[in-house]
Amino acid sequence: MGQKAIYNFNAAPEKVDFTLHATIEAICSDILNVAGADAKKNGISADVLMQQNRSWVLSRLSVELDRLPEQYEEYNVATWVNPHTSRFISTRNFELSDVNGNTFGRALSQWCVIDFVRRMPVVLEEVEGLFDPDYYCDEQSPCEAPRKVRGVEPAVTRKHEVRYSDIDFNRHVNTMRYIRMMLNTLPIEYLTEPRPLRLDIHFAKECHLGEVLTIGYEQRDNVSLFEIRNGEDAVACTAAIEWR
Amino acid sequence: MGQKAIYNFNAAPEKVDFTLHATIEAICSDILNVAGADAKKNGISADVLMQQNRSWVLSRLSVELDRLPEQYEEYNVATWVNPHTSRFISTRNFELSDVNGNTFGRALSQWCVIDFVRRMPVVLEEVEGLFDPDYYCDEQSPCEAPRKVRGVEPAVTRKHEVRYSDIDFNRHVNTMRYIRMMLNTLPIEYLTEPRPLRLDIHFAKECHLGEVLTIGYEQRDNVSLFEIRNGEDAVACTAAIEWR
Repeated sequence: MGQKAIYNFNAAPEKVDFTLHATIEAICSDILNVAGADAKKNGISADVLMQQNRSWVLSRLSVELDRLPEQYEEYNVATWVNPHTSRFISTRNFELSDVNGNTFGRALSQWCVIDFVRRMPVVLEEVEGLFDPDYYCDEQSPCEAPRKVRGVEPAVTRKHEVRYSDIDFNRHVNTMRYIRMMLNTLPIEYLTEPRPLRLDIHFAKECHLGEVLTIGYEQRDNVSLFEIRNGEDAVACTAAIEWR
Repeated sequence: MGQKAIYNFNAAPEKVDFTLHATIEAICSDILNVAGADAKKNGISADVLMQQNRSWVLSRLSVELDRLPEQYEEYNVATWVNPHTSRFISTRNFELSDVNGNTFGRALSQWCVIDFVRRMPVVLEEVEGLFDPDYYCDEQSPCEAPRKVRGVEPAVTRKHEVRYSDIDFNRHVNTMRYIRMMLNTLPIEYLTEPRPLRLDIHFAKECHLGEVLTIGYEQRDNVSLFEIRNGEDAVACTAAIEWR
């Protein structure tokens, strides 16, 4: 069985907002970069899968943040992958801690491997390298799996045309951009001081360069709900931020 | 006299575009982060100046890139500040090199110190800490100073409303966002493969949350010209990218 792998970060100025704390987007970006770096270390990164016309696709993500790191603060992100309990979904966990080892954040991500030729998810057992027993760690997930986000009834909508800076190596909208679009639609009052939160996000469809997306927002008590629709009015991404 | 200070970077996945090379925005961000880190090391960072109601403001920047680093490539940014030749403008230089020491990029930035109370630039001699002789390095600038960009006649315009993710610790539009807005307005054909280039950019006015900016673009032979106007139709930023 494998161990947790630990990656070090620093809340450099480009990661902070006007509160001088790291943004939710920056922390989620760290989490995904850790996933990428750790997959690369284990020989199963997206660029290796690409040689077989396959790639990792993030399906769902939950993130709990008790606080957000201050500018220049150092912090660690530990990551581990649980043995598969599903044929198609790989669960990667994360734990964020400060330099004294105090945990301040937890995350759980669910990934599929997609075959570009068949446009279908691949049974994980068929993916070379995913059999290495050192890759898995039995330690349980640090937070609840991503919750379903349904029935968003937007009270506010905003349009966003997908441009160059939005797209990733696949020419699809970068996962982080959906989070940015949502935070950009939220009333700024929710962001004027850092608050503990839980984010649940579900990626349903890929969006492409030139598409005009519609970002919908609804506030329901202490939960901010979001829905992003693609150029054909199909739901591309839904999310909820519970302010704690 | 001081020495060049050297900072190490890596073209991590979040810095690259679909060509799997670092973006122009990411390199400019590295350059500005080096400026911030080096000023901090010398005790004259923005957060120190802030205690005197002052801050550094970037006025002009020129960047020459012979190539863009590939994903995961390591590179170095050297920086040094020339002795002032102007009462108000401090010149900070940069040189980008690969792990073998080959230079592939050069930049020159011109900064003012602004007094927030008087809303005026400060005579640099009045700024404490800017007298330390170890702070200056006599080595000449590695490229031509920022050129003036005038008379842009936009053939294409695009609107952009300033949102949460656009603003910096001062609640003004982050310098890097102007570069992003320009690249997002450029026809994608200019970005489908990395090309040598020179960027000249001039920051004239600060823009604020909620303002709707107009990004104008004109192609003149091998030069892409840009002009960003604020909500009152005044020029906030101009730039030129010469494709080499």
